[in-house]
Amino acid sequence: MSNVSIVKWEDVLLLTLQGYMDDETAISLVERLTGAVVQHGARAVVIDIAAVDVLDSFMARTLGNMAAACRLLGAETAVVGMRPDVAMTLVELGMPLPGVRTALNLEKGIALLRRLIVGVP
Amino acid sequence: MSNVSIVKWEDVLLLTLQGYMDDETAISLVERLTGAVVQHGARAVVIDIAAVDVLDSFMARTLGNMAAACRLLGAETAVVGMRPDVAMTLVELGMPLPGVRTALNLEKGIALLRRLIVGVP
Repeated sequence: MSNVSIVKWEDVLLLTLQGYMDDETAISLVERLTGAVVQHGARAVVIDIAAVDVLDSFMARTLGNMAAACRLLGAETAVVGMRPDVAMTLVELGMPLPGVRTALNLEKGIALLRRLIVGVP
Repeated sequence: MSNVSIVKWEDVLLLTLQGYMDDETAISLVERLTGAVVQHGARAVVIDIAAVDVLDSFMARTLGNMAAACRLLGAETAVVGMRPDVAMTLVELGMPLPGVRTALNLEKGIALLRRLIVGVP
């Protein structure tokens, strides 16, 4: 758990993944994230995976689960900062993160989410 | 590799395929393209295949992989300029480029992508 921080900024939660995480950590992270969305009334969640150089199938599915759970709680999610080799690997393995929004970096991710939630107070 | 150029124009990358390419070239092209998307912060990728008169199954799959990988990096992709006989062959072979956006020509491809990414700075 020490390798994951969740930071609140206005109505955005920023979750920064640092390298590889085991399955148990990933599961508890979904709990922490959904709890934080409810606690802070977050409207948007940005998951930064710039420091992740290996994304296995379980973690890919976990990212999809996070996005789906946050959506049910009223928050849109974007995964940002994916490295090109990680993107290619996901595609070659047939796991191109269906149902997960992606953006190049934090700035573009927040812009994407702002556009999605614009007009909603 | 000499038969493929990647040109940046504002936030659009234009990749022009010149005729047939072997499998190795196709694989390294995916690497070059994803690297260029990240380097330039591209929001849209247009792949012009007007000069391609033979599109085999590997190249068709490669186009799909390019689009999926670029999406993970936050860029939308359109394939433009397909020749009618290439389109017919793809359909007859049962490979109608699932998951790949297409447009008649470069102008319409860029218009399509602009519509998709509108509103995001």
